[in-house]
Amino acid sequence: MRYTLCPELCGTARLITVLKRSPRMAKLTEQAKKLLDGKNFACVATLMPNGSPQVTPVWVDREGDIVVINATEPRQKYRNLKRDPRVALCVFDMLNPYSKVLIRGKVIEFTNKGAEEHIDKLSMKYNGKKYDYHRADQPRAIIRIQPEHVTH
Amino acid sequence: MRYTLCPELCGTARLITVLKRSPRMAKLTEQAKKLLDGKNFACVATLMPNGSPQVTPVWVDREGDIVVINATEPRQKYRNLKRDPRVALCVFDMLNPYSKVLIRGKVIEFTNKGAEEHIDKLSMKYNGKKYDYHRADQPRAIIRIQPEHVTH
Repeated sequence: MRYTLCPELCGTARLITVLKRSPRMAKLTEQAKKLLDGKNFACVATLMPNGSPQVTPVWVDREGDIVVINATEPRQKYRNLKRDPRVALCVFDMLNPYSKVLIRGKVIEFTNKGAEEHIDKLSMKYNGKKYDYHRADQPRAIIRIQPEHVTH
Repeated sequence: MRYTLCPELCGTARLITVLKRSPRMAKLTEQAKKLLDGKNFACVATLMPNGSPQVTPVWVDREGDIVVINATEPRQKYRNLKRDPRVALCVFDMLNPYSKVLIRGKVIEFTNKGAEEHIDKLSMKYNGKKYDYHRADQPRAIIRIQPEHVTH
């Protein structure tokens, strides 16, 4: 399967390319999981079309070691991540900002499937009620992020 | 004064270069000023050597419409900003995270002058006392940021 990534190259070159492209994966620490599972906002940094950074606060979720956020497709961060999947997040404890985690990684999946239910889940986590602003004209996506560097 | 920016070029070229390099400047809104002046942490996004984003929470200060942060020179964010001055910040009200400001801009000055006194000022703002961790082996810098885009 790994050879299908580089169909234009010879076998040897393909193998090297795949090895180079293998994402570094990082496990989340227990402190990182606690910060992500708490009612803390994540600041998510993405890249604008000219390569400059952009950063916005978002609700955040977690599936094991995968960081999960949710955005409508017209949003700048969604468009940025679709173009360039490289992403960084920081999360600090809202009650003690000196407890923090810094994550760098890549988006590994965008999916519309279940995205409206997922924003309800996030709204329950942060506000204790379902999301009030569902809009049929603004498709929503779940964005899954593979951490590659995790520091405190 | 504008001609001194490009001493290696002829007069005409200098003028064009200066005009091209003239940063777009954005004023801070009253809400932005209030958020920056409050005891709120800023999440600062910079660019790693490979162009990927990095984001960390920092203490933040303001001089009129200029956003001011402070870092030791060994810090990743300092080294990133020295290489590429493009920067983004978000600041949200720690007591009401839905009140927020997003800023994109460029570093216009790094200076060691007054940087130790400035970290004391920031420590007074956030912790009510002077900074406890001055280190002679880690030069500290004031970093001044010109906002180019300010949104809420």
